[in-house]
Amino acid sequence: MGRPRVVIAGAGFGGLTCARGLKDAPVDVLLVDRNNYHLFTPLLYQVASALLEPSEIARPVRQLIRPLPNADFLQASITGVDFKGRRLLTDRDSIGYDYLVLATGAQSDSFGNASVAEHGLGLKDLDEGLALRNRILSRFEESRWTRDPERRRALLSFAVVGGGPTGVEMAGAISELIRLVLRKDYRQLDINEVRVVLIEAAPHVLGAFVPSLREAARRSLERKGIEVMLDAKVDSVTDSSVRLGGGQEVAAGTVIWTAGVKGSDVGKATGVQLVRQSRIKVDGTLQVPGHPVVFVIGDLAGASDGTAMLPMLIPVAMQAGRHVAASISDMVANGGARAFRYKDPGIMATIGRNSAVAQLGWVHMSGFLGWLMWLGVHLVNVISFRSRIVVLVNWAWDYIFFDRPVRLIVRARP
Amino acid sequence: MGRPRVVIAGAGFGGLTCARGLKDAPVDVLLVDRNNYHLFTPLLYQVASALLEPSEIARPVRQLIRPLPNADFLQASITGVDFKGRRLLTDRDSIGYDYLVLATGAQSDSFGNASVAEHGLGLKDLDEGLALRNRILSRFEESRWTRDPERRRALLSFAVVGGGPTGVEMAGAISELIRLVLRKDYRQLDINEVRVVLIEAAPHVLGAFVPSLREAARRSLERKGIEVMLDAKVDSVTDSSVRLGGGQEVAAGTVIWTAGVKGSDVGKATGVQLVRQSRIKVDGTLQVPGHPVVFVIGDLAGASDGTAMLPMLIPVAMQAGRHVAASISDMVANGGARAFRYKDPGIMATIGRNSAVAQLGWVHMSGFLGWLMWLGVHLVNVISFRSRIVVLVNWAWDYIFFDRPVRLIVRARP
Repeated sequence: MGRPRVVIAGAGFGGLTCARGLKDAPVDVLLVDRNNYHLFTPLLYQVASALLEPSEIARPVRQLIRPLPNADFLQASITGVDFKGRRLLTDRDSIGYDYLVLATGAQSDSFGNASVAEHGLGLKDLDEGLALRNRILSRFEESRWTRDPERRRALLSFAVVGGGPTGVEMAGAISELIRLVLRKDYRQLDINEVRVVLIEAAPHVLGAFVPSLREAARRSLERKGIEVMLDAKVDSVTDSSVRLGGGQEVAAGTVIWTAGVKGSDVGKATGVQLVRQSRIKVDGTLQVPGHPVVFVIGDLAGASDGTAMLPMLIPVAMQAGRHVAASISDMVANGGARAFRYKDPGIMATIGRNSAVAQLGWVHMSGFLGWLMWLGVHLVNVISFRSRIVVLVNWAWDYIFFDRPVRLIVRARP
Repeated sequence: MGRPRVVIAGAGFGGLTCARGLKDAPVDVLLVDRNNYHLFTPLLYQVASALLEPSEIARPVRQLIRPLPNADFLQASITGVDFKGRRLLTDRDSIGYDYLVLATGAQSDSFGNASVAEHGLGLKDLDEGLALRNRILSRFEESRWTRDPERRRALLSFAVVGGGPTGVEMAGAISELIRLVLRKDYRQLDINEVRVVLIEAAPHVLGAFVPSLREAARRSLERKGIEVMLDAKVDSVTDSSVRLGGGQEVAAGTVIWTAGVKGSDVGKATGVQLVRQSRIKVDGTLQVPGHPVVFVIGDLAGASDGTAMLPMLIPVAMQAGRHVAASISDMVANGGARAFRYKDPGIMATIGRNSAVAQLGWVHMSGFLGWLMWLGVHLVNVISFRSRIVVLVNWAWDYIFFDRPVRLIVRARP
């Protein structure tokens, strides 16, 4: 008789925290992820904007689970769940489980708009971040040698769709990459030809923040040369433009889509009931109704705090991971799962150098002070001591010399 | 009347040095390269073995030419030369020149062996380095979950073909990656199942070195757990093995091909006369016979020192770049091109931690002393102050903690 096996699908913040929480439990843990690394997603936009390298924000899962004597890892893509036979189905193998934790996160959602799916670039994983970096740099190279002025305008125009934290951070990072770094690389560049546009359907950016911080963020974006278009809905996207609901056409050879996010396709593949944003319906205990040994945590979980769905944020995923680890430990000892309550530690977003907004309970910060706060929190949380040194070197280098070292168009040969 | 235009094809060590040498000449310089970066090739094997990131050994060409007021850059692939019309043909545009410098380097040569071309992995550029890293790490992930013992043996066997510096360095780096780092990631791994084989057709490795250093390198390789097979010619390669000339079959799910190198395809595309290794035939002045405004430098140049062809080494390319820049400056001032003479500064190769061989004139070093020499030379020559810091952090981290931070299987989404 072996020990109960806990299979955790997804090695993000939720899955990894759950595995760590089961370190001393009398169970065997198997983490499954399609990538062999855990990703520190808050800095993904810095990979896309040529400041950081993958290894500075990602770490091999196998290295992270070395201190967990009861954990192992399988790199595989999840294709479904056989709830009756208690097996997780993958492209590599099917894996029996006694407890299953689904933590595969979220992905870009184009809301069924085929033109967005074809021409929009997402920013949800490392492969997308690198593709976006290659695209931005290639557009500049092409613009240098394009004689058609209309084509050149499109190549030098960048549209970010979605005014949430990802959109705001990406818009700020692109604008600074162009104005502070690339400008020096392209002597003939007329900076007035460059355009960075942030398109948001709501009447304000950063909807999760209080109005004063939203306004501070908008002003900061505009000071950094970004055109903020509010109340603007995207109708369609082409190779060289974005068409808005009102018929207006915005030239853009690069369209970054951060407006829509939904639970990962694994949710749909399980066949269980989904709620808003394709997230899996769960009980207050984060169990799937009717499947007491199956839990869902993180962005994929359609968990509610009683009034609204919990946001897709790292603290939610980590707290849920810890909570479910405790529930499983209790269940193994013949106890039961307990209700999950989310404790909000606050939210923050940066708009680029010297500027960020932070909302921590009653404490609201913006500008330089908010930025120092943002720097500290992210540097402390980045995933290893080595990355902390290297990230700090790169940040300081960029801050002092206005230089981004990773302006390389690179792709692994297929 | 504009100034004479010098077009330099290739932004490697030869092309870049030549552009720098023309900084103060009354000419306009255009560098053309298919990549937007200059690559510090001596450390490419450390990218392939999960120790360094691309930005630590590559730098944007546009950044490197910022101090050159008369230089510009075009990212394009070269398709040929119209010698009569004096135009360099590329996939993006055709470019008129008054002087042309061909410096597109070398590429892997499978000697027309289709099985090598299909299954062998080269290590001549960054895309190949990243592909090789992904392959090594993926083979280990697959081996963990493969039940067929024969398949697992192939997945855990790595063959490096070619006992030159690249082959020796890569074999040492893979062996240490496995024995010192991955071993800790795979608890169940039986290290006796792992095999790293270095296959060389000659009766010794490192043929360019004196016999005592060749012998020191061979002993060092074997101490690091590498099987060195000498007098062994590769007949064919499959997905899971290498077949040798004598009929012997060596299991290997990963075959790294460093045995053959030839001048880049640009040489063939020009239609001029080629000599051994598909290098372009040149005069003692590095001019193409019959084309006095066309020079060839670096690995692509079939230059001779009177008795033998010059080796494909960075110092040759840099000295030739400097020499041709001076010749062009003289020709613009109505002088003529002078004969090129190579001054050999010495050669070195490392076999992994604490071990390298260096042959600098009459000074021969091996072991730890050679390794310190190797470290110093490479750290000083790595391409920027920032990379020097980051490379040093990574080297120290690896040396002290036996850890390679870049064990990530990543590819930019196409």
